[in-house]
Amino acid sequence: MSKLFMFEKPLGMRDTLPQLYNRKKAVRDQLAGEIKNWGYQYMETPTLEYYETVGNASAILDQQLFKLLDRQGRTLVLRPDMTTPIARVASSKLANDIPLRLAYEANVYRTQQDEGGRPSEFEQVGIELIGDGTITSDAEVISLMISALKKAGLQSFKVAIGHVGYINSLFLEIVGNEERANVLRRYLYEKNYVGYRNHVQNLGLSSIDRDRLLKLLELRGDEAKIVDAIDLAESEEGKKAGRQLRDLWKLLEVYGVTNEIKIDFNLVSHMSYYSSILFEVYAENVGSQIGNGGRYNELLEKFNQNTPATGFGIQLNRLLEALNAPEEEEKIDCILYSTERLAEAFALAEEKRKAQEKVVIQNIAGVQDVDSFTQKFDDVTYLIGKARGENK
Amino acid sequence: MSKLFMFEKPLGMRDTLPQLYNRKKAVRDQLAGEIKNWGYQYMETPTLEYYETVGNASAILDQQLFKLLDRQGRTLVLRPDMTTPIARVASSKLANDIPLRLAYEANVYRTQQDEGGRPSEFEQVGIELIGDGTITSDAEVISLMISALKKAGLQSFKVAIGHVGYINSLFLEIVGNEERANVLRRYLYEKNYVGYRNHVQNLGLSSIDRDRLLKLLELRGDEAKIVDAIDLAESEEGKKAGRQLRDLWKLLEVYGVTNEIKIDFNLVSHMSYYSSILFEVYAENVGSQIGNGGRYNELLEKFNQNTPATGFGIQLNRLLEALNAPEEEEKIDCILYSTERLAEAFALAEEKRKAQEKVVIQNIAGVQDVDSFTQKFDDVTYLIGKARGENK
Repeated sequence: MSKLFMFEKPLGMRDTLPQLYNRKKAVRDQLAGEIKNWGYQYMETPTLEYYETVGNASAILDQQLFKLLDRQGRTLVLRPDMTTPIARVASSKLANDIPLRLAYEANVYRTQQDEGGRPSEFEQVGIELIGDGTITSDAEVISLMISALKKAGLQSFKVAIGHVGYINSLFLEIVGNEERANVLRRYLYEKNYVGYRNHVQNLGLSSIDRDRLLKLLELRGDEAKIVDAIDLAESEEGKKAGRQLRDLWKLLEVYGVTNEIKIDFNLVSHMSYYSSILFEVYAENVGSQIGNGGRYNELLEKFNQNTPATGFGIQLNRLLEALNAPEEEEKIDCILYSTERLAEAFALAEEKRKAQEKVVIQNIAGVQDVDSFTQKFDDVTYLIGKARGENK
Repeated sequence: MSKLFMFEKPLGMRDTLPQLYNRKKAVRDQLAGEIKNWGYQYMETPTLEYYETVGNASAILDQQLFKLLDRQGRTLVLRPDMTTPIARVASSKLANDIPLRLAYEANVYRTQQDEGGRPSEFEQVGIELIGDGTITSDAEVISLMISALKKAGLQSFKVAIGHVGYINSLFLEIVGNEERANVLRRYLYEKNYVGYRNHVQNLGLSSIDRDRLLKLLELRGDEAKIVDAIDLAESEEGKKAGRQLRDLWKLLEVYGVTNEIKIDFNLVSHMSYYSSILFEVYAENVGSQIGNGGRYNELLEKFNQNTPATGFGIQLNRLLEALNAPEEEEKIDCILYSTERLAEAFALAEEKRKAQEKVVIQNIAGVQDVDSFTQKFDDVTYLIGKARGENK
């Protein structure tokens, strides 16, 4: 092979060396502990799916999909998210079991445009609550996410909760068509509030309509903003969306998690399958969201099921960044032996291993540089030369 | 999407539903417990690698690779094994740490020709011991594999151990060139001993040479076969290979695992990077090998390192088949509540969850069929109607 490229990896692909691996595993297991305690069951789906099923139904942009052809010429994709494959399974195999609580920890794949440091393969830990259309299931999903993040040791974070239906009805009410509404939504999605403001000023609206669109930007904060939002909406749909958030807040109070909640009626997600309540988690020291979720009642329709659903996904690498905990060296001992004392070395190691201690036994004949080899171990025992009592 | 294909998955791709998922996880963790106790450290590599690096160096046939193009037009592969990516990492990032003990649990990808039921994506659990050329490292790898399989509960299994170098030198000695040797190797690889016999009869060899090739077929059994093999070899290389197996056997006696060992000088692997000692594990009730391994001193040369290495990989799905243990239903309790009693339900659930019990709380308003929903739970508590003391 070309020596130049010998060690190269594709764009956005990463190795995970032991220290980071252990850290990831520890956090993943802490999340899983809580998720399982809430009665969610883990499952797995394949890495490859048909483009015409999962690739199409997914909310990830087409140009972000890794695509390949199978022998029959059909297009496959590396799963870009886990919600869509789980919707496929729930619709085909588990449709009679609803409400259904499923969980996953899995890598998903999205191509990156440049060497910007964003991974093309990253692990998501998440849940899906399928088949319960009541607002209590939204409250459960958000509360479980908060609870799991706390169990993983995350200290300072906020969950912003919004309602896509609220924004949609307000925009349609005022600007009249989806195309013009889309422009507004894009500003919000990019969190470009200055751009939104300028755009609204130039829309040629009545001062009342203009003020209403600008007032939307103020609907971010605590519980009081929900009341303001209900007032701002004129359509029954908008008011209903506001009241849903009010009910959700009440339930989140019961769950005792409102300290971590921020109301944000400006929230718009790239996940096009979110249809009403949606949310994003932000930690103090990480620029991008570390997780998100929401209700996706329409996704299962693509798999022929008229079933409501909601869920969240946490991006494990970003959570690790937020936790900012030092990588821990594993404590491993070493017994360095010479060939004739293998039995002794192995017996000693077995004894330690029974006590769940991690022990390497290494023939000194296989080591080129003893100093450099032994320095990575916590403790080194030498069984070199003839064993005691053997020189009879 | 087309309704016909709505739930279809690509050839050889599978969903893993919760019961099987838990079973897999339990066995994976049992293997990991032992592997970690022996001081091996887990790591991860990306799903996608460049064809020109890992794809090319891998021993998997080109037509079994899943290939795709990146934006720059370079060919990527879904990793077909884990040994090659780990060789890449060890050669580039960890080359000074040898001997190095690494472990992995990861899916690998190989295309299948037909709907024969063989998976295209399957999990391997394995280790690599890199940088120790002594026979003690072969003994360690084999002993750890046996010990881990026992910890996972596998009762009745045999590890067949052979030596590629022995076969190669015998064949070259007798048939004179690699092309003719390859034909013989293929019969052995396919375990087609009748075909081998017929082929040898028709080679037009002297009766002495013919008998020697036929005698090779008898070199399967216990320790005594090693002596026979050393006798049968005439080249120094062949005798040396035989003596290596003799030394290995002695070490395996120290490790106390010879009950599980079968000597098999007919062993040939499709893993072209195996260069000397190699082995395969068979369980009583599974037709195909559940794991294999061996020494691959030449693989790291492809990554510019002159470093010996050995390792094993266990195919987790086949091990599960061999274990044949019943899938265990998770014990999950359910609290079914009406909205006004959420606080009560949540408090009760939290109490149980603190004791590591798995509890679903479900609003009865979100359930369409209470009978069918509740039957999957171990225990159901109803908190329906007004709470006691609330009707003041």
